[in-house]
Amino acid sequence: MAVLGVGLLGASVLKAVAARFPGARRRAWSRSATSRAQAADWAETAASPAAACEGADIVVAACPVDSLGSLLADAARGIAPGAMVTDVGSTKRGAHAAAVSLGFPARFVGSHPMAGSEKGGAGESRADLFEGRACIVTSLASTEPEATDVAEAFWRGLGSRVHRMDPLAHDAAVATISHLPHAAASVLAALLGSRAPRTDLAAGGLRDTTRIAAGDPDLWVPILMENADHVAPLLAALSAESDALRVALERGDARATRAILERGREFRKSL
Amino acid sequence: MAVLGVGLLGASVLKAVAARFPGARRRAWSRSATSRAQAADWAETAASPAAACEGADIVVAACPVDSLGSLLADAARGIAPGAMVTDVGSTKRGAHAAAVSLGFPARFVGSHPMAGSEKGGAGESRADLFEGRACIVTSLASTEPEATDVAEAFWRGLGSRVHRMDPLAHDAAVATISHLPHAAASVLAALLGSRAPRTDLAAGGLRDTTRIAAGDPDLWVPILMENADHVAPLLAALSAESDALRVALERGDARATRAILERGREFRKSL
Repeated sequence: MAVLGVGLLGASVLKAVAARFPGARRRAWSRSATSRAQAADWAETAASPAAACEGADIVVAACPVDSLGSLLADAARGIAPGAMVTDVGSTKRGAHAAAVSLGFPARFVGSHPMAGSEKGGAGESRADLFEGRACIVTSLASTEPEATDVAEAFWRGLGSRVHRMDPLAHDAAVATISHLPHAAASVLAALLGSRAPRTDLAAGGLRDTTRIAAGDPDLWVPILMENADHVAPLLAALSAESDALRVALERGDARATRAILERGREFRKSL
Repeated sequence: MAVLGVGLLGASVLKAVAARFPGARRRAWSRSATSRAQAADWAETAASPAAACEGADIVVAACPVDSLGSLLADAARGIAPGAMVTDVGSTKRGAHAAAVSLGFPARFVGSHPMAGSEKGGAGESRADLFEGRACIVTSLASTEPEATDVAEAFWRGLGSRVHRMDPLAHDAAVATISHLPHAAASVLAALLGSRAPRTDLAAGGLRDTTRIAAGDPDLWVPILMENADHVAPLLAALSAESDALRVALERGDARATRAILERGREFRKSL
């Protein structure tokens, strides 16, 4: 197998495969010399994406969603005809579009392991990152069923619970459960940063509520932009909900204030 | 000492005092028969707030902020003239106003240990709840300096870092670092609950971002309402920030999107 891109997810894939399938031959390529050096602990390193892919049955592109197209284009001539190619990005319509435009829709399967962290980089990688976590696998009508089966078996092999979804259904679902919370945490943290807050007095709630705002903008700006048609309406609804609470407080309306807090509590307790 | 109200904070005060000052005589009263029974493990229980306070040098009222006035009124005839009376509420202007209207501003000191949890009740209490946490102590110009010193020594004795503040400055500061994050988590969770989200696919970010939304509305509705003059403008600013991100996404404006995410990240990394 080949891993293209050795950040948190790519390096964790290498470590997980090394731990669970030590007989599998692993090759890795990374744009960054630092990550390439780190990858040498868990894989043979290659000088180019295409060289990394030569002879691989499984290719995992682990890069920001906006560079998947160019990375797969660079890798294309090295990818064997029968190889299953997948990614790890947080949006899936764009991933399939990139694969279609390169002419290999049949062997490209989208993957989204729900296992990121606001702490990125190969240094944060872990062999057990995918264990017990959801991994969404997406395919088009033109995708070879066997390629999808390989992708599913791959993630199950790393300990994930696999859910198959359509790319559009994926993007809609993760807009709600992942992209909106990320946007909300960023917006809250951005506002707090502008208010000279007494963070020396803060309790755990502030840390938890803003934790994911520390995520890398190089990863998150492309995700939010690619999924803007889903995320923007959710942000509009978030502003409306925030305004409803503001109005309730301004009016001294305990009943309306309580109704919003009760709805929030009910959702949180359902998790 | 006397503790009036035996929820998470009241019970934790009893346990912490029992652990650190086993010679201190502890008496407790609680409205709830269940909590009274639990309190019997760490204190003598009393049949009324006034009876609990008889002979106590330190009285800690640990109740929702909107019942502090009536609780202190019930306790007043039992409180010795020289006793220091404090509370543990998340708003402080109202606490001092309640004490002033009862005629004992000189011996009432406001306390706000920054050590709550979305999991309330005596069953969640811990002897080390206050260790290493900030505790804000508030007083009026009319407060006896000695009473404030006693309150400060009390919380230091339980392991807290004490910060003295004016009640108004307190309410403004915690609106930003605590009440706004709580409101934001509630609003996000309320919205998510209305969207039939695929929570089976969610990662840790969703859990963290909404954790404090599980807090008890009986505690949080009065807090947000009492501090509405600070919280409502912050919610308006949050909606504006959310709208700015929405507009950036709708316009496909990567630069504006990145600017908000960078500001959020910078704040979060400063914590």
